[in-house]
Amino acid sequence: MFESAEIGHKVDKATYERELPALREALLDAQYDLISRRDFPVIVLVGGVDGAGRSESVHLLNAWLDPRHIETHGMGELSDEERDRPPMWRFWRELPPKGKIGVFQGSWYSLPILERVYGEIGNAPLEEAMERNARFEQMLSDEGALILKFWFHLSKAGQKKRLEALEKDPRTRWRVTDRDWHHFKLYDKFAKVCSQALRMTSSAQAPWHIVEGADERYRELVFGRTLLETLRKRLDQPPAPAAAPAPPMAVTVDKLNILKALDLSARLDKSSYQRELETWQGRLNLLTRDKRFQDLSVVCVFEGNDAAGKGGGIRRITGALDARRYQVIPIAAPSDEEKAQPYLWRFWRHIPRRGRLALFDRSWYGRVLVERVEGFCSEYDWRRAYSEINDFEAQLVEHRVVLVKFWLAISQNEQLKRFKEREATGFKRYKITPDDWRNRDKWPEYEQAVCDMVDWTSTEIAPWTLVPANDKYHARIQILRTLCERIEAGLRARRKS
Amino acid sequence: MFESAEIGHKVDKATYERELPALREALLDAQYDLISRRDFPVIVLVGGVDGAGRSESVHLLNAWLDPRHIETHGMGELSDEERDRPPMWRFWRELPPKGKIGVFQGSWYSLPILERVYGEIGNAPLEEAMERNARFEQMLSDEGALILKFWFHLSKAGQKKRLEALEKDPRTRWRVTDRDWHHFKLYDKFAKVCSQALRMTSSAQAPWHIVEGADERYRELVFGRTLLETLRKRLDQPPAPAAAPAPPMAVTVDKLNILKALDLSARLDKSSYQRELETWQGRLNLLTRDKRFQDLSVVCVFEGNDAAGKGGGIRRITGALDARRYQVIPIAAPSDEEKAQPYLWRFWRHIPRRGRLALFDRSWYGRVLVERVEGFCSEYDWRRAYSEINDFEAQLVEHRVVLVKFWLAISQNEQLKRFKEREATGFKRYKITPDDWRNRDKWPEYEQAVCDMVDWTSTEIAPWTLVPANDKYHARIQILRTLCERIEAGLRARRKS
Repeated sequence: MFESAEIGHKVDKATYERELPALREALLDAQYDLISRRDFPVIVLVGGVDGAGRSESVHLLNAWLDPRHIETHGMGELSDEERDRPPMWRFWRELPPKGKIGVFQGSWYSLPILERVYGEIGNAPLEEAMERNARFEQMLSDEGALILKFWFHLSKAGQKKRLEALEKDPRTRWRVTDRDWHHFKLYDKFAKVCSQALRMTSSAQAPWHIVEGADERYRELVFGRTLLETLRKRLDQPPAPAAAPAPPMAVTVDKLNILKALDLSARLDKSSYQRELETWQGRLNLLTRDKRFQDLSVVCVFEGNDAAGKGGGIRRITGALDARRYQVIPIAAPSDEEKAQPYLWRFWRHIPRRGRLALFDRSWYGRVLVERVEGFCSEYDWRRAYSEINDFEAQLVEHRVVLVKFWLAISQNEQLKRFKEREATGFKRYKITPDDWRNRDKWPEYEQAVCDMVDWTSTEIAPWTLVPANDKYHARIQILRTLCERIEAGLRARRKS
Repeated sequence: MFESAEIGHKVDKATYERELPALREALLDAQYDLISRRDFPVIVLVGGVDGAGRSESVHLLNAWLDPRHIETHGMGELSDEERDRPPMWRFWRELPPKGKIGVFQGSWYSLPILERVYGEIGNAPLEEAMERNARFEQMLSDEGALILKFWFHLSKAGQKKRLEALEKDPRTRWRVTDRDWHHFKLYDKFAKVCSQALRMTSSAQAPWHIVEGADERYRELVFGRTLLETLRKRLDQPPAPAAAPAPPMAVTVDKLNILKALDLSARLDKSSYQRELETWQGRLNLLTRDKRFQDLSVVCVFEGNDAAGKGGGIRRITGALDARRYQVIPIAAPSDEEKAQPYLWRFWRHIPRRGRLALFDRSWYGRVLVERVEGFCSEYDWRRAYSEINDFEAQLVEHRVVLVKFWLAISQNEQLKRFKEREATGFKRYKITPDDWRNRDKWPEYEQAVCDMVDWTSTEIAPWTLVPANDKYHARIQILRTLCERIEAGLRARRKS
């Protein structure tokens, strides 16, 4: 693995000075092409051995390129904000938008590698983390990102020499800490763990570049030229349109499906409703005041047919909550800022802190519903979304997020009745648009999309609840009861860490 | 996950009889297109709940299609032959060639799922097995295979009813075993494990098709039409040529690399050589007679520059061995049969039984050496090969194969000397061809390929040994000594199972 980075690569001064000006100019040109085209982001990971030139390379990048279009992130200790969310949240929030270069010193590799070297986790969790990293980068790359991963390496003897040299020079002494020497003692262990991690995650789309860090001029030229050639190749040769056509996903031979099989006749009379509403809202309020609730958070997803009563369901929840505890996130068309990011980005940004609730009025499932049916993304895009969504939700649940997903189902007749009502009532008219009528024409396509969604994303840890919603009273109580029960289960579950 | 397959799908007799003839005819047409074009194989996995129609579907396939071009495999108990090899070996040997349909009842899913349900393994090993399955199928699909995965499902009540009905009928009573009822008691556990397994491995290229098995006519039509639509889509719409262009892999800025850094001056005089040869050959012979040797096997890979002495090195090993214990496998251009399979197939077939040695004169590394340099495969193909090879080798080593990989390195001058010698010596002239001279012209490209190969496939469990081979005596002794030491380490390692 590190064989090629321990053999004393060197570049002499004359060569370096001859090559550098042209390299820098070409790099700037490439960056300006990137900025003006603004059709993909560049993610640069800078990792490796202490003293091998990580920080120097980050500085270099900012010196060589226009730093106004570079975002540099030294990911150190977790903040309170970050500790309250799943580990990947801090990286999602810092992803560069299209046209920018995001540089990460410290990345999604750092923690699992450190934990493994310190013996805090075994080999299986390390492998699991690396598989997850590989899937994360595959997703980023499918979403258009260009990923460059640099690993600066020194041999064991080389690292010792380097740390000693830094310590000896009064100008750089501050850079060598006890932690560096402690890590040096663990050199062999680090080498073993890192070589496994790098090997498992070096893909054709996001290869690791291992750079020998002993000679500064060599290191700089490799870093600069790798950056240049990778940028240039991508700029000059945009990716082929999507992947090979996939085999069909589901074949139907009869008319039955889980939505048609759902009994929509359930009803609740007004007085029972009012009694139950009080009961469940009271219970929900108490649950959110439970001391143990500070240890979890709640994410609710509301999806359903147009006019199925999502808003009403959400208001019956918020009616029971302290306003400082929850946030309702209505999902409409993405903003410009959101469009410059992978599609999951705009949902990650709203993941609540511990002790809080986020209620999504429509959600990331748009990818496999409206975007699929309306052709807003390619088949390849929505088909890979099922496992991407499962990955995303698994991260939430592992971080003690209680994730509750509702599909509110109404019949075609009931929808027609409600549409007409909305059109006839002045203050409801804003709720009905030509889009709603258009969607209605594609009822069978949406139905198929919903069935596939439930089949492939109703997991043990994050099941879908199908709510018959022809009767609003019945639907609202089912929603409140389900939410309460899921929070109770969450409170009962023993905390892992 | 199984929601859509528990709602009582049904097809009435009239519909069935109206649809079937056309379906069968279209299926036969598709099969004949497949046979005449012979450019991809079809792999059909048939899994699911006992009594849900697995066997019936396999029979159906053979009735509907031309059975001469279908290979059906009921994977039951392991044979002695199979137990002696890594678990995937039995599946590799049964993969259908291009133009054929291979049907597997029982597959790479069966064992991990059973072991997990029986509590013999935890959740992490199950997930690991499923990740490996996903990578295996990705590789098959990258190699051109069309994969169809069927899962026949019954609800818990449905399965009970079905087993009782089968038991009641004297003609089918034999089909219900104690094992079926035992599995039925584990229904919930099975459902949980299987839904996780299916979800983790349902990709766009190889999606799972979950089929409700309660109604025979429904089940048959879904099975037939899924098969037809999948075949037809692939036949009518061949896959796009390779994937998006990948970023560059390694950038060089100086002339140094691990081969150039290798000290080729090591020599051994003739009398020392003869003494050492006797020592190490004797030791090797003893090692292969050790009782514990019956518990492992040895795979040696010989790669190196043309005329570096691979053959001579191999003969010094075989000279110390009982002829029944080893096999030398010279790798040249693949046969027709081999060309109809994924590239790793022809190496899997030669994996030795326990207690034996296989010596590969050139190997699977051809993919990242000659095939890369000569452009015999696409960049996408050789770049994915590094991790495919690491996966392959990990399976060998997990199965107690001692894997020893040699790169025999000589200088360009030494090679020239040997080429000329070969041309001048009558009985050596067959060893030198125009290809050898052509390869020699591409020395720098080959050198780069070798360095990348060593960097990305020299693993903790299967390291490369670089052998300076300008001096044949020295090289042969290093090979023998390395082999002995690796076998000794293998014998010392405690057996896991």
